Amino acid sequence: MPHDPQFSGLQTDLYELTMAAGYRKAGFDALATFELFVRGLPPRRNFLVAAGLAQALTYLERVNFSQDEIGYLRRHAMFADIDDDFFDFLANFRFSGDVWGVPEGTVIFPDEPILRVTAPIAEAQIVETYLLSAIHFQTLIASKAARVVLAAAGRRVVEFGSRRAHGPDAGVLAARAAFIGGCGGTSNVAAGYRFGVPTFGTQAHSWIMAFEDEKEAFGRFLDIFPANAVLLLDTYDVQSALETILAMGRKPRGVRLDSGDVVAQSIWIRRRLDDAGWNDVEIFASGDLDEDRIAAMLAAGARLNAFGVGTALATSIDAPALSVIYKLVEVETGGMVREAAKFSAAKVTYPGKKQVFRLSDARGTFAGDVIALEGEKVSGAERLLEPVMRAGRLLAPQGDLVAAQRRGLEQVARLPDALRGLAPCPAYPVRHSERLVELLDEVRRRVERAAR
Amino acid sequence: MPHDPQFSGLQTDLYELTMAAGYRKAGFDALATFELFVRGLPPRRNFLVAAGLAQALTYLERVNFSQDEIGYLRRHAMFADIDDDFFDFLANFRFSGDVWGVPEGTVIFPDEPILRVTAPIAEAQIVETYLLSAIHFQTLIASKAARVVLAAAGRRVVEFGSRRAHGPDAGVLAARAAFIGGCGGTSNVAAGYRFGVPTFGTQAHSWIMAFEDEKEAFGRFLDIFPANAVLLLDTYDVQSALETILAMGRKPRGVRLDSGDVVAQSIWIRRRLDDAGWNDVEIFASGDLDEDRIAAMLAAGARLNAFGVGTALATSIDAPALSVIYKLVEVETGGMVREAAKFSAAKVTYPGKKQVFRLSDARGTFAGDVIALEGEKVSGAERLLEPVMRAGRLLAPQGDLVAAQRRGLEQVARLPDALRGLAPCPAYPVRHSERLVELLDEVRRRVERAAR
Repeated sequence: MPHDPQFSGLQTDLYELTMAAGYRKAGFDALATFELFVRGLPPRRNFLVAAGLAQALTYLERVNFSQDEIGYLRRHAMFADIDDDFFDFLANFRFSGDVWGVPEGTVIFPDEPILRVTAPIAEAQIVETYLLSAIHFQTLIASKAARVVLAAAGRRVVEFGSRRAHGPDAGVLAARAAFIGGCGGTSNVAAGYRFGVPTFGTQAHSWIMAFEDEKEAFGRFLDIFPANAVLLLDTYDVQSALETILAMGRKPRGVRLDSGDVVAQSIWIRRRLDDAGWNDVEIFASGDLDEDRIAAMLAAGARLNAFGVGTALATSIDAPALSVIYKLVEVETGGMVREAAKFSAAKVTYPGKKQVFRLSDARGTFAGDVIALEGEKVSGAERLLEPVMRAGRLLAPQGDLVAAQRRGLEQVARLPDALRGLAPCPAYPVRHSERLVELLDEVRRRVERAAR
Repeated sequence: MPHDPQFSGLQTDLYELTMAAGYRKAGFDALATFELFVRGLPPRRNFLVAAGLAQALTYLERVNFSQDEIGYLRRHAMFADIDDDFFDFLANFRFSGDVWGVPEGTVIFPDEPILRVTAPIAEAQIVETYLLSAIHFQTLIASKAARVVLAAAGRRVVEFGSRRAHGPDAGVLAARAAFIGGCGGTSNVAAGYRFGVPTFGTQAHSWIMAFEDEKEAFGRFLDIFPANAVLLLDTYDVQSALETILAMGRKPRGVRLDSGDVVAQSIWIRRRLDDAGWNDVEIFASGDLDEDRIAAMLAAGARLNAFGVGTALATSIDAPALSVIYKLVEVETGGMVREAAKFSAAKVTYPGKKQVFRLSDARGTFAGDVIALEGEKVSGAERLLEPVMRAGRLLAPQGDLVAAQRRGLEQVARLPDALRGLAPCPAYPVRHSERLVELLDEVRRRVERAAR
């Protein structure tokens, strides 16, 4: 199989490779456990929707280094004192660890592990950057999409942001994640082809501008796409465009507004369409939309059937990053297990392999989560982390997007009411188990003793 | 050559393909000219640094559709009424147009074309989404990097944001663009391998946590990387970490602070290092940095030699998108040229093929730009757009990153002083030529006549 740069082990921060080389050279062959989680919510997020697990696991299955890539590292000044053992290790590199993860579409909160990796420490370290990147971005977008979908209150939302996503690949991944977050589809065709996300499209201003006048532009489009034409009204003047279409007497599937006073225009258009007996012609809105604008337009009485949401969704524009981290929680060397924690100023991480337990009330509404050690029991609670990979092999196929979307929509529906609103609200109750708090204290005392 | 998904023509919005199919079916074989530009600056940007041209042009050279991808489109409901001519066109698709662009590293302003594409309209339309995405993202990051580099006032800035960039590929492209914007390098190894960006790395908290105590963790690292060890101080306690290193008596290349009161710590550390005669040990800061924090730390007297800037840089966190658009400006059919414009509410675009003319004062400081029609002359001005591709073939190799960085740094240095500050300032003077303003009016009158 030729080397596929998509699975290159070089997609990492240099220090991961430096440390891997260091662990090899030091003969430190510990089995390490890392957990990936988000430190805190951005101000305008009440919950997160986990996504990206499928891409993370595909990478773990296939990550490798080509000879040419290894040659690049051999020539790097940082590795001047590193001998062949490390480069041989890279030439034969495969990920051999065990992984637990929360299924895509699961609602999650800060401090809750989304992924837990147990592997020889050099392996676990090399894949850190990719795992963070893959899970961070899709979780970011799925979480934003969930808000937009809530604002649309049952109307279809289509992700439209490929052109302003962070590069072509981000556009495809954003489309995938937005679907998990509840969108009906995307404009990104590669996301349709690669992941089966439903794809939608209308027409562009350039189509209108390319022809002599709007009558010709609309007529030609209706000729070619008789069943699917959604006509764009705002290239020159919305009212005259709609009158042109009505005068032609040829019913499109829908019309699209991309600028201007969408509330007033949609009310007027709906009336004109209904007067013409075109009650089933949909009105589609786009143009710098986000969850706040959608909620405001609907509250103001806009008559809209669907929304195309672009930049704000594909970049999570009001919160373009989450504080994801990947922290060492346990080291096993020579049969000895030692829990690890970090307690620098304001950046505490809890030690030990964990599980997230979720409690629900009698009506099925989520009532609070407990982060506990893996072996603990929390009665009546559902466990969020599942085993997904053992010894580098997937335990079950991943990437069922329809199931992930269903899970997401169902879990969002089970959140307490306030969390489903767009406004900030008191945090969902998440606590660490007593055993975990004690263990953190034990580790702190151990490190302080060693430092003396 | 096997199909490379990196160059798949499906990396586009569905409506581009719909319109291409429509143009084919309508027999509308116009030669179209589109211009790609940014509508306006985000509040916290005084200028932009163009980047991404090399990736845009590589795509244009290689874009194609596999049979399997075409099969996907054949089965798509949108193309139910489209016949074989279009699918044959896709099977033989190659981009055959002419392209002008501003070189990477060029300082640009709103409304100034960064790229101009002249091609058969179906081709020009299909590549729209990718071109926008490629140029948007790298321009976004290069522009943010320029601010961070200005704030660092001559100290080295290393891009550290791969883990929170918008997916693994965005991390690589962010590293490339950050270098163009003036960064000294990146932590992203793939960016080093693929693009020659210098790569840097230190050590992670996990290295410290993996060993029994800091003395062992630091000692092992110094053993393995005697010339390049940058030791991380803040895993447990900064002062005790530094004292441990000093007591070991083994000089590292540098130390890194990733949290806490970096100003006070750096002053204290510098003094302790200098007292030990370790004047050449560098102090490196990282941890949620951006241009404002760097400027504030330096203003407060921080003793720092270099900065690692992650999330804020790799996501352009305060402005994660630019208002890039790709607008039809001219259509040529049967030898007749017709300029195109758009004048919906607040979204005017100017017609015709344009050039950007830049004036400088006697000291070489940029004095103002004129956006004019291609054939116009502006005496004493430099032309920013250059021909880069003819009939689908590159006119010269692209992607010399060192030259792009040099151009960027030199051009930023020639900006009026206020624009180089971090605070918003009055806009750099950019005007449209009189001829362009007249032409817009002519097009408006023509469209209004046609609508009557």
